This record gives sequence, structure tokens and C-alpha cells, in this order.
Amino acid sequence: MTITGEMIIGSQLVRGSAGEQRAYNPSTRAEFEPSFGQASGEDVERACALAQQAFDPYRALPLEQRARFLEAVAEQILAIGSELIERAQQETGLPQARLEGERMRTVNQLRLFAKVVRDGRFLGATIDTALPERTPPRPDLRLAKIGLGPVAVFGASNFPLAFSVAGGDTASALAAGCPVVVKAHGAHLGTSELVGRAVQRAVQECGLPEGVFSMLFGDGRTIGQQLVAHPAIKAVGFTGSRGGGTALMRTAASRPEPIPVYAEMSSVNPVFLLPKALEEGGAALANGFVDSLTLGVGQFCTNPGLVFAVKGAALDAFTAAATTALQAKGAGTMLTAGIHEAYNSGIARFGATEGLRLVAQGSTEGIGCAAQAALYEVDAGAFIGNPDLQDEIFGPAALVVRFETEEQMLQAAEQLHGQLTATVHVKQADHALAAKLLPILERKAGRVLFNGFPTGVEVSHAMVHGGPFPATSDSRSTSVGATAIDRFLRPVCYQNLPAELLPEALRDDNPLRLARVLDGDLKVAV
Amino acid sequence: MTITGEMIIGSQLVRGSAGEQRAYNPSTRAEFEPSFGQASGEDVERACALAQQAFDPYRALPLEQRARFLEAVAEQILAIGSELIERAQQETGLPQARLEGERMRTVNQLRLFAKVVRDGRFLGATIDTALPERTPPRPDLRLAKIGLGPVAVFGASNFPLAFSVAGGDTASALAAGCPVVVKAHGAHLGTSELVGRAVQRAVQECGLPEGVFSMLFGDGRTIGQQLVAHPAIKAVGFTGSRGGGTALMRTAASRPEPIPVYAEMSSVNPVFLLPKALEEGGAALANGFVDSLTLGVGQFCTNPGLVFAVKGAALDAFTAAATTALQAKGAGTMLTAGIHEAYNSGIARFGATEGLRLVAQGSTEGIGCAAQAALYEVDAGAFIGNPDLQDEIFGPAALVVRFETEEQMLQAAEQLHGQLTATVHVKQADHALAAKLLPILERKAGRVLFNGFPTGVEVSHAMVHGGPFPATSDSRSTSVGATAIDRFLRPVCYQNLPAELLPEALRDDNPLRLARVLDGDLKVAV
Repeated sequence: MTITGEMIIGSQLVRGSAGEQRAYNPSTRAEFEPSFGQASGEDVERACALAQQAFDPYRALPLEQRARFLEAVAEQILAIGSELIERAQQETGLPQARLEGERMRTVNQLRLFAKVVRDGRFLGATIDTALPERTPPRPDLRLAKIGLGPVAVFGASNFPLAFSVAGGDTASALAAGCPVVVKAHGAHLGTSELVGRAVQRAVQECGLPEGVFSMLFGDGRTIGQQLVAHPAIKAVGFTGSRGGGTALMRTAASRPEPIPVYAEMSSVNPVFLLPKALEEGGAALANGFVDSLTLGVGQFCTNPGLVFAVKGAALDAFTAAATTALQAKGAGTMLTAGIHEAYNSGIARFGATEGLRLVAQGSTEGIGCAAQAALYEVDAGAFIGNPDLQDEIFGPAALVVRFETEEQMLQAAEQLHGQLTATVHVKQADHALAAKLLPILERKAGRVLFNGFPTGVEVSHAMVHGGPFPATSDSRSTSVGATAIDRFLRPVCYQNLPAELLPEALRDDNPLRLARVLDGDLKVAV
Repeated sequence: MTITGEMIIGSQLVRGSAGEQRAYNPSTRAEFEPSFGQASGEDVERACALAQQAFDPYRALPLEQRARFLEAVAEQILAIGSELIERAQQETGLPQARLEGERMRTVNQLRLFAKVVRDGRFLGATIDTALPERTPPRPDLRLAKIGLGPVAVFGASNFPLAFSVAGGDTASALAAGCPVVVKAHGAHLGTSELVGRAVQRAVQECGLPEGVFSMLFGDGRTIGQQLVAHPAIKAVGFTGSRGGGTALMRTAASRPEPIPVYAEMSSVNPVFLLPKALEEGGAALANGFVDSLTLGVGQFCTNPGLVFAVKGAALDAFTAAATTALQAKGAGTMLTAGIHEAYNSGIARFGATEGLRLVAQGSTEGIGCAAQAALYEVDAGAFIGNPDLQDEIFGPAALVVRFETEEQMLQAAEQLHGQLTATVHVKQADHALAAKLLPILERKAGRVLFNGFPTGVEVSHAMVHGGPFPATSDSRSTSVGATAIDRFLRPVCYQNLPAELLPEALRDDNPLRLARVLDGDLKVAV
């Protein structure tokens, strides 16, 4: 397919007239032809108006049709073939195997949401039967959830497929019955066009209203803000920087009608090495940590940037083993020149911070926007006194905090900002300490994991990829996994509705065979 | 019990030192002794610190104990006896029967949440079993919800029991495992003290950490804002004016860690009279409407303030019958002098609005802060051109909008702001029109009801008392009914947790006999 630089506005391909953006190869630092035309205010208006028009007919479709549409998107993405992987490689510097894995993840994610839609549990169907004899009489009350309305999705730079145009936010919003307007990320414009066209084909193939999906090119600060401010948009999905996320939060909160923003922003993903695990973990623990730290050039939201342990010989041995492992890691190409610069600034900031010691650096061998991994250490006192040391450095850099006592480590855990993940390494003898740590970590993170590393986020039913601010803007939800659909739903209660007007999910004969709550008790359809 | 004017800070009774407030009888306009001491900044600090300390031990209690605590609160409220009803009557002007009904509602609400806690469905327990043979291996992943943390609750003036100190927000937050700090409403201070002491006794009786409950007196603009800004507070429940609610939203959004605000604010609860229902409804329809409009002196959040119908002889007959009914209604005492003034200003604003015609007024006979009911009408064109006519006048005033055509009525429905409820009166012949209206109303309101009136909000499993802005600040939830517990929860995923550290809800042997999602399928314990 020829990449044309055109946007997708419903069934149309539209060349944006408000300036242009260029795709860029972070390895060679070369720009691609053609340019991508940026959206004008009218383009935003048109995409949002179409989305608004599409909302009622799209959400009224039988769940089976909605599920098939999600599957059709998956098929259309696969049908692009190797061109998608090649283009994504050129635009992001990510290796082929990673991108192929990410494509499979994207496709499986769409299929997972197709299953979620068919299961229908997300509707939360609940029925209280009428009690006409009671004083006062109770009316017939039936609850089901509906979509919030059109959703603005901002693609992430670090997952050009799984968290971009047809990624998690788009899949969960479409599953919830919400049309989507994507603001494509500037770091993979051609990849976005290819995937956007695949979604557009699926919309057409399934005979859906055209406004179910649009995709715009443009700057986040202009087009992005206009999109979030548009009255037709009822929720926002975003993965990116804390600055970008909080800017969208402000815009959403200051609308005449404020709307929810699901921004996944910044997390340093602390790793706690408890004494016995540290003592017995040896080089395997250090190697596992360094592998997780440098995976994908540290460009994962769940990258472990902070290590907590009590100082002593075991921690010294860990640091020594981590040093050896880190020095063997080559410098990887980062996603964009801007991310590379920000990483270098972060490292420079660490380097200039009193009390921080550079422990180890990776190799400088690499091309283009290549990032040299780095490991620092700091004593607990200096860490506790400087909350800025909790700020994320996006990339393969981590800080080991050396505590005097377990009690001091628990106190510092209490001071942690919100996180996507918190990791604890334990042996049986550490369980008593872990039991004290766990209630703190439950309050701090969306996922608490033991004896592993936080990178690698399973797309499944029990996953939570979320957490308290600043990890995300809204800890009540997840952006990965089946329950991500809940973000884009709101409940509606139907009182004394004539039977023929009731939504299918709430009809007496339960044609969808849903598990429903009936007069307070869960009833499974047989 | 002697009312002392003291606040409740954990297990202590504390006389606030930052000025004083006085309880007031809106019928006699007399003030009560003693005065109530207002909270200082230190009092806020102390209540919040205790709540923070209580959070982990409180949420760690077995669900059965949490449920019994809610039941103990209910018992302690009943144990106050007639003194509670008498004091509430004096402070609010509400009649005895209404307050007795509201006490029963408050008690039943606490008991409903005890059932919700015991059922444990709110935990959303979900397990994905490990797949060690898969490439890459899938870890063991288990999801359960936990409380957000301490919740600040703002009592409502119009429900001195059911939406105040131990009302819906407090009950649902406590059920979710969250300690509560209440800012008592100035309109029923003595009632608040009586109920607050009942909750305090229940905390002591159940041996809970003292910080599970505190209650402060003070001004919303000072103490209320300090409370919402306090870092220990993780969510806010509020029922009141749009100005008050949006002020709290701004404070919550501008904290270093923004937090959710559940503000239930303003709704005019449109009633659609479809042609056949209007034609056949006769005086019964008009009487039902006027009864709902004037119930509780129009001081319900779901008070029907807007009527939509196509003009003609049937609408004229409805208006005539409503006029007769309204003229027979006496002027009722409003909750406070401030509310009474605001009502009179709203009526004056309607009177001065071009295009609005006064159709009927209730009797002026009444005492103290007595409000005269009022019915206005307006032609569709003038209504559509003036969005301010959608602003709520809190009290027994309504506006009938006369449309030229059904199509014009549908278009105006599309322009409605967010509502708690939308009501449709139909006969069989109206179902086709109702089917066009329903998707619009689903988008506009939390509850859509047919052939009834919106006042009277059942506390049950399927109720939704919520809706898009400005009805509430967050349409994703309800403040009445079993699912209100969801507002104060967030999901946590546990990955590869040692069995002995797992929360009870997620253990392999399922000791709580929960319905759980296992590898994507709902499994009911037998």
C-alpha cells in the first residue's frame, strides 16, 4: 500500500491543510517521503461530528456484530502483512521480532475484547422486580451500562501498534460501544496510516456508520487540545508523558462539561529486594533486573527504575553483578530524537545530584539515537529528602536506594508516589516483612508482583495496568486487560419500561443468556 | 441525649475553636442553643491523619466484620429514638412522617450495603491461572478491588438523614473499606451531632480503629476546601449546589495528586408527555405531576422542573388541570432561609424572562421560609434559544415547553443538559416516538422512567442516581443503590503472590465462596 500522508475522516481520506509533519528514522536520522498533512480545526470538527452521529447507531448494534467488527479490525491488521512491520521498524528503531510480537498482542487484544463483548458481563445487567403490594410500591428497575460517547485516543510512542491507532484504548472504547477519534502519534505516522486504513476497511466491511473511526494528524498541543475540548468527545485515552497527560486533564476539567481522562503517564516501578531473597538471589537476580531495565531500551511504562534494599554485603554483591551485566549491554536506538534528548537530560540531572553515585554504565556502542544504560545508587537519607528522585527518566536508567534498616525501607515505601507496578523479591523467610510491605504497595500501585520483573504486561482478564497518580490520572481503572472496557461505560437505570422498549440485555427472557443480578442475587443463565 | 455542639474526631469529642455556627428553625426563624464550634485547620489535620491510620487496619478486617459494623450503625441510629426525628423536624421544617420514612431509608441503606459487603461481588475477583508452558509464560494473575482511601463526605441539606452524616455516601464509602470524614451540613447541625455520635458508638462497639469515622463542623468554603485538599483524602462525596460542587471539583483537580469527586448537583428532570398519553391522561396526569412537583416543597434532586409536549388542545387541558391542582397546594417551609431566598430569586428570574408566561401559582399560605409553587410555560422557540432556562430552580417551580412538532421536541431533547432522570409518559400508540426518544434520553440521564414521576428514588440494586454533567460531576457512577460502592474502589492485580500472602477473596480454596472470573469465565461457588 502506498503511504499517502492522508488522514481518515469517516469514510474519506483527507489531506490535512494545516501544515505538515514528517516521519523520521531514529536510527539513520533520515526523514521519509511523503509528508503528512496536519488537521485543521474543520477536520477536527468533521471527525467529531461524524463520531457523534455514529454513536447511537453503533451502540444499538447487536453485541455479536460489535464483536465481529473488532475481529475484522484484527484481520485487516494482519492482512497488511510485512509492510506494517517494516514501516514500524523504520519509524521506531524497534526490532522486527518485538514488532511482530506487538502485532500479535494487538490482534489478540482486539480478539479478547470481542470475547468480552460477546460475554456481555460488562453490561452489569441488574434487575429489581416490581413490588406493587409494598408501601410505597417498588417500580420495576433495570440497570445496564452504555458507552460514554465518542472517545479521543492519543497513540503512544512506545507501542506503535499495541498502544496506538488500534491499540488498547481504541479496542476497549470500540468494545464499549464508543466511536473513536485517534490523534496519531508523530513518532510513527506511516505505521499509523497503515493501521488506520485497516480499521477504516473493517468499518466498511462490517457496514458500520462511517463515524465509528477517524484518525487525525497534528500536534498534541493544538489538534490534541481541540479534540479534547470538543463537545462531542466524552472521554479521553492517552499514554505518554506526565506533561502531556496533565495538560489534557486540565483541558478536560475546564470544559463546560468536564469529561474523564485516562492518562497513563509516569511510573518508576520500584523493586524491593527483601533480605533473604537478596542474600540467595545472586547473579540471577541481578541479571534478571538488568534484562528488565534494558528491555526495549528501557522504553516500557513498567521499566524498573528504582531498587529498594537494606545495605550490606548481599546488596554490594547484587550491585557488582548488576554492574557486570549492565556493562555488557549495547546502546539501543530510542524511539525519537526528543526521547533520546530527554533521556540524556535525565541522566545529566542524576549525575549532578548530590548523594547519587554512578555505579555502572552500558556500552556506548549503538547508532542514531542510542541510549547508554546507567545504574546509580544513593543512600536512604539523601533519597528520602529529595522527592524529585522519584521522577521517571524514560529509558534504561535505574537508581538503587540503600537503606539502613527494614523499618526505614517501609517508611520510604510509604512516601512513594503512585506507580503502575511494585515488585517484591522474597524467599520464605521474607514473608513476614512482605506482609508488612504489601498493604503499603496495594495503596501505591496497580499491580504488585512477586519474584519477577515488571516488564511484560499480560493482556488478560485479571491484569491491571493502572495505579494512583502520577502513574495514571485515574486509579479506578486499567488500560490493559478485559476490564479496560469499564472505563468507557456509565450505568443507566430503566424504570417501568414497556417490554418492547427494553434493551435486549434486560428483557425478561434474557435472550443474550447473560449472568444477571436479580433482586440482589447473581443468576447465571443455564 | 444533650446536644453539645462538639465535633467527632475519632474517639474524641472536640469543641471546635474556629468560630461557631448555630442551628436554626426555618419555620419559626429561631436559633437554637448551644452553638456548634467550627473546626480549625488542626482539627481537619487530626481527623484526616486518624482516617489515614485507620485505612489499612479497617480494610483488612474480614468482610463479615465490616458488614456487622454497617448494621451496628443502623442499630445505633434507631436507638436514638424520637429525639432524632424531633430535632430533625425542628432544624429542617420537614414533617415527622417524611423524617421517619427517611430514617428507615437510611437504616435500610446501611443494611443493603452490609449485604453488598457480605456478597463480595464488589471485589470483582478475577483469576488468570499461570501458563508456564506458553511462550512467553503467563504468570499467575489475580485481581481484586480495594478502597481508594479516606473519603470526605459533605452532607446534603435536603436529606438530613439519608444523604447526610450516615447517608448514602458514608455508607457506600465505609462498605468499600474507606474511612470517612464528614463535613456536617450547617442546615441540620444538631441532627448531625446525634447521628455522628451514633456512628462513633458503632465504631467503638465493633472495636474498629477510631479514625474510621470523624465529623467536623465548619464552612464549606474553608473547612470543606481544606478537607478536599488534604493529602490523606482520596475521594469526595457531595450533594448540593452546582456552585459548591464545581468548587470542590476545582480543588480536587488542582491538588498535587488529583482525586475523584462525586458531586450530585443540579437537574431539572424533564418529563415528556407523548401525544396519546397526553390526550388520554387527563387530570390524573396533571395531578400526578403537580404532586411530584410539590412533594417535599420541591426540594428533591429529582423534582420535575421541565415538561415537554407538543402544543394543542390536550396540552391546554393538561395545563388547565395542573393549574387547578397547583392552586390547591399550600406554601411549604423550605429547608433554610438561603434556599428560600434562592427559590424566590429563581422565580423572579423566570418572571422577568421574555417569552415565559406564569400559568399558575400555589397558595401563599404558609409559615416561615414558605415557598409558593409556580408553573410557567414557554413556546419552543424561546426555550431553544435560551439555554439558561435549563438551570435548576431548587423548589416547587416548573416550566412547560410547548413544541410545534414531535420533531422539534426531539431536537430540543438533544439539546438538554445532563440530568438525573428523564420521564416519558406513553400509551401504546406512542411507542414508535418513544423509541426515537429513548436513545437520546439514555445519553442525557442516569435513569429513564416511563409512566411515573421521578421523585421517589428506590434504594436497590438496579437504581442509578447519577447522570451526565451538571447532574453530577461523574456520570460513571450512582450515589444511590448497591453499585454506589463501586465509586470508592480501585483494582489491584497480584502477580505470582505466595499463597499465604494472597487476599482471602483470591485464594485457591475460595473461602468467601465468591463468584469469580476464572480464565475469563464466570464461576459461581457452589
